[in-house]
Amino acid sequence: MTEQPIIQAARNQPVQTTPIWMMRQAGRFLPEYHETKEKAGGFLGLCKIPEYGVEVALQPIRRFDLDAAILFSDILIPAEAMGLELTFNPGPVFARPVRQEADVDALIVPDPLSAMPFVMEMLTTLRQTLPAEKAIIGFCGAPYTVASYMIEGRSSPNLEHTRTMLYSRPDLLHRLLEKVTATNLHYLQAQVRAGAEIISLFDSSAYSLPPVAYQEFALTYAHQMISALSETGVPIIYFAPGSMALLEQMATLGAQVIGVDWRIGLGKARKRLGAEQAVQGNLDPAALLGTPAAVKEHVRRILDENEGRPGHIFNLGHGVLPSTPPENVETMVAAVRGEI
Amino acid sequence: MTEQPIIQAARNQPVQTTPIWMMRQAGRFLPEYHETKEKAGGFLGLCKIPEYGVEVALQPIRRFDLDAAILFSDILIPAEAMGLELTFNPGPVFARPVRQEADVDALIVPDPLSAMPFVMEMLTTLRQTLPAEKAIIGFCGAPYTVASYMIEGRSSPNLEHTRTMLYSRPDLLHRLLEKVTATNLHYLQAQVRAGAEIISLFDSSAYSLPPVAYQEFALTYAHQMISALSETGVPIIYFAPGSMALLEQMATLGAQVIGVDWRIGLGKARKRLGAEQAVQGNLDPAALLGTPAAVKEHVRRILDENEGRPGHIFNLGHGVLPSTPPENVETMVAAVRGEI
Repeated sequence: MTEQPIIQAARNQPVQTTPIWMMRQAGRFLPEYHETKEKAGGFLGLCKIPEYGVEVALQPIRRFDLDAAILFSDILIPAEAMGLELTFNPGPVFARPVRQEADVDALIVPDPLSAMPFVMEMLTTLRQTLPAEKAIIGFCGAPYTVASYMIEGRSSPNLEHTRTMLYSRPDLLHRLLEKVTATNLHYLQAQVRAGAEIISLFDSSAYSLPPVAYQEFALTYAHQMISALSETGVPIIYFAPGSMALLEQMATLGAQVIGVDWRIGLGKARKRLGAEQAVQGNLDPAALLGTPAAVKEHVRRILDENEGRPGHIFNLGHGVLPSTPPENVETMVAAVRGEI
Repeated sequence: MTEQPIIQAARNQPVQTTPIWMMRQAGRFLPEYHETKEKAGGFLGLCKIPEYGVEVALQPIRRFDLDAAILFSDILIPAEAMGLELTFNPGPVFARPVRQEADVDALIVPDPLSAMPFVMEMLTTLRQTLPAEKAIIGFCGAPYTVASYMIEGRSSPNLEHTRTMLYSRPDLLHRLLEKVTATNLHYLQAQVRAGAEIISLFDSSAYSLPPVAYQEFALTYAHQMISALSETGVPIIYFAPGSMALLEQMATLGAQVIGVDWRIGLGKARKRLGAEQAVQGNLDPAALLGTPAAVKEHVRRILDENEGRPGHIFNLGHGVLPSTPPENVETMVAAVRGEI
C-alpha cells in the first residue's frame, strides 16, 4: 500500500495535495461533539468509553474529509494511570499535586494495556473503521508538560510551582521526568501496536522555559522518547507552541515533523529548521473567525511561504477555537486543496 | 550633568556597571506594597492618589538601590480617560467593551493633564524626591495591547474578540488603534514634560499575532508613537513578551531599547537585533524562586552572554512574580553589580 499523504509529508516526500488536519478537530466547535459528550456523561466519558471517543474522533473526518483522525484522549490520562486522582472542572484538576519527594516516590510506571485499555481499543476500532487513505494519529504530552500539570495540580499560566522546583530541587524534577518519560514511552509503544500510524508529542508548557532549562528539562526527555520510538518506524510530530525562539534546538530532536505556531512565518521557520525538517502549521486559529475571503487569503499566504516544498502538513498554529464557524473550516480545507 | 547609567545604556554607550530595574518592582512581592495599597483603598487608589503612588514607586529603590523608579500606574488608565468605565476585580474589567462602530465613535482623545493630572503629579514628585543618578521611567501600553483590552473587556488569553475584529472588521480595528495612538502619544508627551526620562512601551498582547498582522496592527502604531516622541530626546524601551520570533521586525521600530523575554538567549537575541540595538533583559523571573546559588548562576550566564557589550539594561524577562523572596532580589542586584 502507498503510505497516506500525511505520512509521506512527514517523511519529507512529495505529495499531490498538501495533507491537512486540525489540532482539537474533535472538539467544542462542532455541535455534534457536544451531543456525544452529553451522552458520554462528560469529557472523561469521551476519553474512556471507546464507543463515544471513536464517534467524536470520526466527526471531523465526516464533515471535512480531513487526512487524519486523532485519538480522542487527554495528555493527563497517563498521569492518572500513574496514581493521581484526576477530575475535569472544566480544566484538569489533580486532587493531590506532586510537590514533595514522597509524591514522586508514590508514582507508578503503569502497564498501559491494563491501565488504559480503552485507549488501545479506540485506536483499533478507528483503524478498522476509517478508509485506508486516512491516517490515525496517536499522541501524548511531552514529559516536561505532563510533569508541569502534575506539579501545578491544575492549569496555571505561570507554572510557579514547577519552576520553583526547577530552580530549587532540579534533582526531584529530574526524577519525576524520568517516571513520566518511561510511562509515556510505554504508552506510545502500545498506541503504535494498537493502530497509531503517526504520533503527536505536545509540549505546551515548554514556553515557560529559558533555552538552557528547555534543553535540560524538556528536550532531553522528549529526545529520549523519540529515539526509543524510532524502531517502530512511525513518524513523530513535536509541537511546543509559544516556543518559536527555540526552533534550532527542536531541530536536533530527531522528530520527523516540527509543529510551527502562527507567531512566525512558515518560510522563516523552515529556514531556521533546515531543509531536511518537515513542518506542520501554521494558520492563525483566529483567521477562522474572520470572513471566508480572509480565510482563503491567509491559507494562500502559508502555501506561498512554503513555496511548494515537500514536508508540509497543513494545520492551525494551535487548537481550533471553540467559536469557529464550521463553514470556515470547509473554506480552509477547500483552499488548501486548491478547490477554491 | 552626566546622564544616568540606564539612559547611557539605552543609548548604547559604555557604563561602569550594568544598570538594573525590574518590571513590577513596585508590586505584590513587597510586604510594604500591600500596606500602602490598603491605605490607598486598593489598586486604583495607588494609581490615582499621588502620595501613595509615589510611595510604592520609591519602595523598591529604598530596598534594592535600583537604577530607576517607574511611574506607578496601569496601562488602562488612559483607556478610562477615553471614556470607558474601569474597575479592578482583581484584574481590569471594562463595564462596556468596545466591539461596535458606535463604541469606537464614542471614545474621546482626552487632554492628559486634565484627565490624568495625578500621573503627572506623581512624576514631578518622584523627580523631586529621587537622587539625580536614579532615572524616572514613564510608560504606557502600546496601541494594539490597549485596544485588545478595550475590545475584550477583561484579561483574556485568547483575545478572541480582538482577533475576530482583526479578521472581519480590520477597518474598525484601525480606527480604534488611531484613537488609542493619539491618546497615548499625548499622554507620553505629558509624562516627559512632567519628569519622565525614559519611556517603556508595553506590547503584552502582541504574542497573539502572526507576523503580517503584527506589522499592520501593532508595529505600525508603535512606530508612529516612537517617531513622534523622538523630538523629546527621551529613549524608549519597547517590550513585547512572548513575541521573540518577531525580533527582526522590532528592530525596525526605531526604539532605543528592545525588551527581551527569558525564552531566548540574550546573545542570540542581540545577534538577531543587530549590534546597534540596545536591549533589556532577560532573567527568567522564576529563577528568583530558586536558591541564592541558582540566582547568581543565572545572572552570571546573562552577563556572560552579553560579553561586556554596551547597550544592556539588566531586567527580568517579565514582571517579578508575587511569590519572589525579596532576599533573592538583593542577591540578583549584588550579582549584576559584581559584588558577589
